[in-house]
Amino acid sequence: MKQNNGTTVYLVGAGPGDPELLTLKALRLIQAAEVIVYDDLVNEQLLAHSSAGCVHDYVGKRCGRHHKTQDEINTLLLEYAQKYRHIVRLKGGDPMLFGRGAEEALFLCRHGINFTVVPGVSSALAGPAVAGIPLTSRDINASITIMTGHESKYRPSKIDWKKLSGNLVILMGIHRLRPLVDRLLDVSNYAESTPIAVIYRATCEDQRVDVFTLGELDKYLPLLKSPSVIVVGEIVRLREQLLEVEQLVAS
Amino acid sequence: MKQNNGTTVYLVGAGPGDPELLTLKALRLIQAAEVIVYDDLVNEQLLAHSSAGCVHDYVGKRCGRHHKTQDEINTLLLEYAQKYRHIVRLKGGDPMLFGRGAEEALFLCRHGINFTVVPGVSSALAGPAVAGIPLTSRDINASITIMTGHESKYRPSKIDWKKLSGNLVILMGIHRLRPLVDRLLDVSNYAESTPIAVIYRATCEDQRVDVFTLGELDKYLPLLKSPSVIVVGEIVRLREQLLEVEQLVAS
Repeated sequence: MKQNNGTTVYLVGAGPGDPELLTLKALRLIQAAEVIVYDDLVNEQLLAHSSAGCVHDYVGKRCGRHHKTQDEINTLLLEYAQKYRHIVRLKGGDPMLFGRGAEEALFLCRHGINFTVVPGVSSALAGPAVAGIPLTSRDINASITIMTGHESKYRPSKIDWKKLSGNLVILMGIHRLRPLVDRLLDVSNYAESTPIAVIYRATCEDQRVDVFTLGELDKYLPLLKSPSVIVVGEIVRLREQLLEVEQLVAS
Repeated sequence: MKQNNGTTVYLVGAGPGDPELLTLKALRLIQAAEVIVYDDLVNEQLLAHSSAGCVHDYVGKRCGRHHKTQDEINTLLLEYAQKYRHIVRLKGGDPMLFGRGAEEALFLCRHGINFTVVPGVSSALAGPAVAGIPLTSRDINASITIMTGHESKYRPSKIDWKKLSGNLVILMGIHRLRPLVDRLLDVSNYAESTPIAVIYRATCEDQRVDVFTLGELDKYLPLLKSPSVIVVGEIVRLREQLLEVEQLVAS
């Protein structure tokens, strides 16, 4: 069962969008790749780092509009592993924070394919930071919860909504934001005045930030688009502080 | 008050330890820096990317053994900003996930100094990933909480221990791990059988991983050292699964 042909599948984080937020290791592996299998949230500019003969295979996977199923992607990786030695599976952000990297790793392992994980800059961290929202600040919070908003359609939910508290980062949350915020208000007991920031295309040139409160969602909902990183909680107010100071200084 | 001399302080994430997990943007900024102000958790190999004339200022800050206070670091950044135009404040991991990046950003802003945040690969994500622990897996969890273990000495705590649940990543937790685990067991109601992984010097060549249960802490505590990333919860079991498959395949 063990493949002894020296093949490795690299599960590589492509970073949050800004092509300069790629790591040196990811760059080296992309340059040496024979095949790159990549998703929707990967900036296609990164493919330009690859060599002339490298195969680029787009398996675009975004909530509700799957181009290939996860099983098809797994099978594809297996097929490439039989033909090539250096395969890069390029995933948006970090490969092991959502995005089903765990499933691909277990699948490869079960089929005797060597794999290596190369962590990346997650949009969950980079999005807020670049939008002027530090994820933690000593005066405000000592923890941050990162969750998927995509999960709320599953029953039973794997999130303990009654216990959910404090500052949150929500990925893949736009399509189900209304029921998600309803749960935060009704089950998790968040106040309507809790600030929320929605960072569209975080770290990209066309990044846009909307800040409002949970109670004001209906007014803003028509403006919001995927992909966005969502931040909920008091840390969002730090952005106002930073902006206020900037305005003060500029005047 | 606004400095119009074109000075910028770059708050740059140095990544988790592996010098290849630096981003391309961080590399470019280090290469162009006139001054680099850096902490304990920054891999000093990264300084080799800087130019010949670049000033390296170590302000090593690690729990219990502060080399400089935060106020002294802030003042230092201000002094450098009056003399130089391109200052890199290099922080381990990501600058805005713990590590007091928020305070430095607000301080710079209040003093009219331009700053830019450059996100990095956080050890909170990279440590578990490289140790074979995916932070999320569709069958197990839909959220992950990242917290500081350093905070538990503060009263009142900013963590709602009664509501704490699910899978956790704890940074800076070794020095107060016994009282921290006591709170998890007694206040947060974690089971003694909950698995815990301690990843020492995550992503570095001498990385070491210890896996046990919360109930077995006393046996392992003498072996544990700082800096370590700690993971608590069912996701730790994925590591066993990956290792089991590897052993199965090798036999």
